[in-house]
Amino acid sequence: MNYDQVFDQAIERLHAEGRYRVFIDILRNKGAYPNARCFAGHNGPKPITVWCSNDYLAMGQHPKVIAAMEEALHNVGAGSGGTRNIGGNTHYHIELEHELADLHGKENALLFTSGYVSNDATLSTLARLLPGCVIFSDELNHASMIAGIRNSGCEKKVFRHNDLEHLEELLAETDPDLPKLIAFESVYSMDGDVAPIHAICDLADKYNAITYLDEVHAVGMYGKRGGGISERDDAASRLTIIEGTLGKAFGVMGGYIAADQRIIDCIRSYAPGFIFTTSLSPVLVAGVLAAVKHLKGSSAERDGQQAAAATLKTMFREAGLPVMDSTTHIVPLMVGDPVRAKKISDILLAEYGVYVQPINFPTVPRGTERLRFTPGPAHTEAMMRELTEALVEIWDRLEMRLAA
Amino acid sequence: MNYDQVFDQAIERLHAEGRYRVFIDILRNKGAYPNARCFAGHNGPKPITVWCSNDYLAMGQHPKVIAAMEEALHNVGAGSGGTRNIGGNTHYHIELEHELADLHGKENALLFTSGYVSNDATLSTLARLLPGCVIFSDELNHASMIAGIRNSGCEKKVFRHNDLEHLEELLAETDPDLPKLIAFESVYSMDGDVAPIHAICDLADKYNAITYLDEVHAVGMYGKRGGGISERDDAASRLTIIEGTLGKAFGVMGGYIAADQRIIDCIRSYAPGFIFTTSLSPVLVAGVLAAVKHLKGSSAERDGQQAAAATLKTMFREAGLPVMDSTTHIVPLMVGDPVRAKKISDILLAEYGVYVQPINFPTVPRGTERLRFTPGPAHTEAMMRELTEALVEIWDRLEMRLAA
Ligand SMILES: Cc1ncc(COP(=O)(O)O)c(C=O)c1O
Ligand SMILES: Cc1ncc(COP(=O)(O)O)c(C=O)c1O
Repeated sequence: MNYDQVFDQAIERLHAEGRYRVFIDILRNKGAYPNARCFAGHNGPKPITVWCSNDYLAMGQHPKVIAAMEEALHNVGAGSGGTRNIGGNTHYHIELEHELADLHGKENALLFTSGYVSNDATLSTLARLLPGCVIFSDELNHASMIAGIRNSGCEKKVFRHNDLEHLEELLAETDPDLPKLIAFESVYSMDGDVAPIHAICDLADKYNAITYLDEVHAVGMYGKRGGGISERDDAASRLTIIEGTLGKAFGVMGGYIAADQRIIDCIRSYAPGFIFTTSLSPVLVAGVLAAVKHLKGSSAERDGQQAAAATLKTMFREAGLPVMDSTTHIVPLMVGDPVRAKKISDILLAEYGVYVQPINFPTVPRGTERLRFTPGPAHTEAMMRELTEALVEIWDRLEMRLAA
Repeated sequence: MNYDQVFDQAIERLHAEGRYRVFIDILRNKGAYPNARCFAGHNGPKPITVWCSNDYLAMGQHPKVIAAMEEALHNVGAGSGGTRNIGGNTHYHIELEHELADLHGKENALLFTSGYVSNDATLSTLARLLPGCVIFSDELNHASMIAGIRNSGCEKKVFRHNDLEHLEELLAETDPDLPKLIAFESVYSMDGDVAPIHAICDLADKYNAITYLDEVHAVGMYGKRGGGISERDDAASRLTIIEGTLGKAFGVMGGYIAADQRIIDCIRSYAPGFIFTTSLSPVLVAGVLAAVKHLKGSSAERDGQQAAAATLKTMFREAGLPVMDSTTHIVPLMVGDPVRAKKISDILLAEYGVYVQPINFPTVPRGTERLRFTPGPAHTEAMMRELTEALVEIWDRLEMRLAA
C-alpha cells in the first residue's frame, strides 16, 4: 500500500481531465465593489472587476452591515466561544432566528455555520427521525442536499429536473404509508431557472409528503421583503421547511432553516452538525441581522439587480453570445468544454481585468461547462459593454461560433 | 403517516430522559471576560461569570484580534461572496493557510468553515480516496469525526479509549494490504486526558497506517508556539494529518487541516464539504491570523491558563468535590445523573451568577453526566474561591457526598 502514489494519482486524474482547480487570489475593495485586486503572479496587486460573486446585492459592503459588525465586535468580541448549548448562544443568534422566521412566515428558525451544513444536517437528521422515509430529490439539487440525503441512509428517488410528471410517477409507485420528503431548490444557480413550487406542493398534498425547499439563491432577492421565490409566489406557508444562506444576498456567512416549532426543536436537539460545533460568530450574526432587516424594507437592491441582469442578457444575446435560458438574475454562457472555459476565463483575467470563474464538473454535468455571470446593482452599463466586447473578441480569437 | 406526531414524540423522549436542552441566552462583555450578561427570564440582563467557554485563552477579546478584524471589515467588507474556487479565495485565506502549515511544520494547510466540517469533510473524503480503507477510531472520538467516518462508508474498528494493546490487536487482525487510517484526539475535551501520540505513531509505522489527529482542544494551548500536544511532544512530523479549530483557543471561528501538499490538494479538490460552500468571512480569517501569530510568540496566556487550572483543581480537591482525573486545562466534576447536573447548573446561575453548562448524553456516555469548568488566564483566585464555596453549599443542599 503506497499512500503517496494513490494521492498523486487522484490529482493526476484532475489534470488529465482539464479540471484541476487553481484558486484566484483576490481582495475586494470595500465600498468600490465589484472592483477588486488580484494577486496572481503579477508585480503587486492588479485591479480587476468581479463578475462571479454571490454577494449578489453587494450587501457585504453595505454601510449598515459594516456598522453592525463593528458594533458587535466592540460589544462582545470575535467568536462565540462555544456551541449553541455550551456558552455559544447569544442574544444576537436568538434575534436573528426570530427575524428569519418572520421573513418566511414560519414559527421559528435555526442557524447553522453555513448553508451547506444546514442542508446536510437537516436532511440527514430529519429523514432519520422518520423511519422508512423515502426522499424525492430533483436531479439538479446542490451537493449539500445530496450529501444530507446520502448521509440520512434513506431510500432516494431522483426525479428529472423540474419534471412534475416524473415526480408524480415516483410518488405514486411508493407505499402510501411510508413517510415521504420532497427536496428541491427554488432558483437553480448554475442555470438560473425556477421550480414550480405550487405544483410540487400540490403533489406533496396529494401523496402526503413533506417538502424541503433550498432558497439559497433567492433569499434577499425575490419577494416583497426578500423572502425568496416562495414569498414571490405566495407559497411559503405550503412548504414544510425553507432553507437559506446568509453568505450570498445577505452578504456575510452562515445558513438556516425556517419551519414549525416542533421541527426546529427536533433538528436543534438531534442534528450532530448543529449540536457539536462552535456557533456562528456574533459579529457575523449582527451583520446578517442588519442585512435582513434592510432588505425587508428596501427593494432598490433587488430592482437594480433585475435591471442589470436584463441588460446583460440583452447585450449578450444581441452580440450572438450563447447565453442560456435563465429567468432569474443568473446569466450563464454555455461553453461545453472545460479546457476552453478555462482558457476564456484566463484571457479575461490576464488581458481584460475581468474575473469570472469557469464552472466545471462536478458543479455542472460534463459537457455543459460554462461561464456564469452574476451582475448586480453595482455593475454599470459601461462595465457590461466592455465585458460583451471582450467576450466577442475572445470568441473570435478562439474560433468559436457566434449566433447570427 | 402523521408527521407532527413523530416529531412530537422525538421531543417527548428528550423530556422524559431529562436531557431536553434549553439554551442560555448570554452576551459577553468585551474586555471584561469572563464577565457576561444573561437574558434568561430576568428583568433585564443579569451579570454572570462564564465558567464553560471554549474561548480558552480569551483571544476572542484580545485587542490585536479585534483590531485585525476591524481593519479587514473596512478593507474588504463582511463576507467572501463565494466558494474558495468561485470568487471567495482571498489573500487572507492564503496567508492563514501558510501560517497554520508553519505552526505544525507541514507543507500546507486547508481552511474549512468549522472544525466540525474539517473532520467530517476530510475523513469522509480521504477514506473514499483509499479503496478498501479500514478506519481505526478511538471510542471517545468527537461526533464530527464519527460523522466523517460514517459518511466515508468505510469499515470502522473502534478501539478502547487510549488503549494501545486493543489498537494493536485490531491492526494486527486486518489484511496488511488494505489502507489503514488511525483517527484520534490529542486532548479529550470532556475528560481532559491526553493521547499517547508517539506510541500510536509507532503502531502506525509498524502496520503501515496513516494517522489523523484532532488537536481541537490543544492548538494554541500546548507547545512552545501553540502547535498543540503534537508540538509539545515533538511528534508533529510523525502525523499524516493534524486537524484544528479556529473557534476555541484562537477565539474566532473556523477549522483546518495541515498535511503534505498532495493530501491538501486531494481534499481541496475532492471534498464536497470544502468545495461547495461559501468560504470563511475574511473578517474572521484576519482575526485568526492575528491570534495565531500572537500565540506563536507569547506563552503568557498558556502559562496563565495552566496556573488557573492547577489552582482550581486543588481547590476542588481540597473541598472534597469529585474532580475528575484531568492532566490538562479542563476541570470536570463528575455528577453521574442528568437531572442532578442540570439542577446544580440551574442553582449556580440563578443564585450565584455562575454559568456552567451541564454535560449530558450524547456528548458524554449516560451515567457520566458532569459539569465541565474551563478556567483561563482571566479567572481570578477570588472567582475560584467563590465558585468552590458555592459548589460545596449546593452539594450539601442536594445531600450529595463530599470526599473526606
Ligand atoms: C443551492 C445551494 N445550496 C446551498 C449552498 C451552500 O450554501 P453556503 O455557501 O452558505 O454553504 C449553495 C452554495 O454555496 C448552493 O448553491
Ligand atoms: C474534539 C472536537 N473536534 C472538533 C470539534 C468541532 O470544532 P468546531 O467547533 O470548530 O466546529 C469540537 C467541538 O466543537 C471538538 O470538541
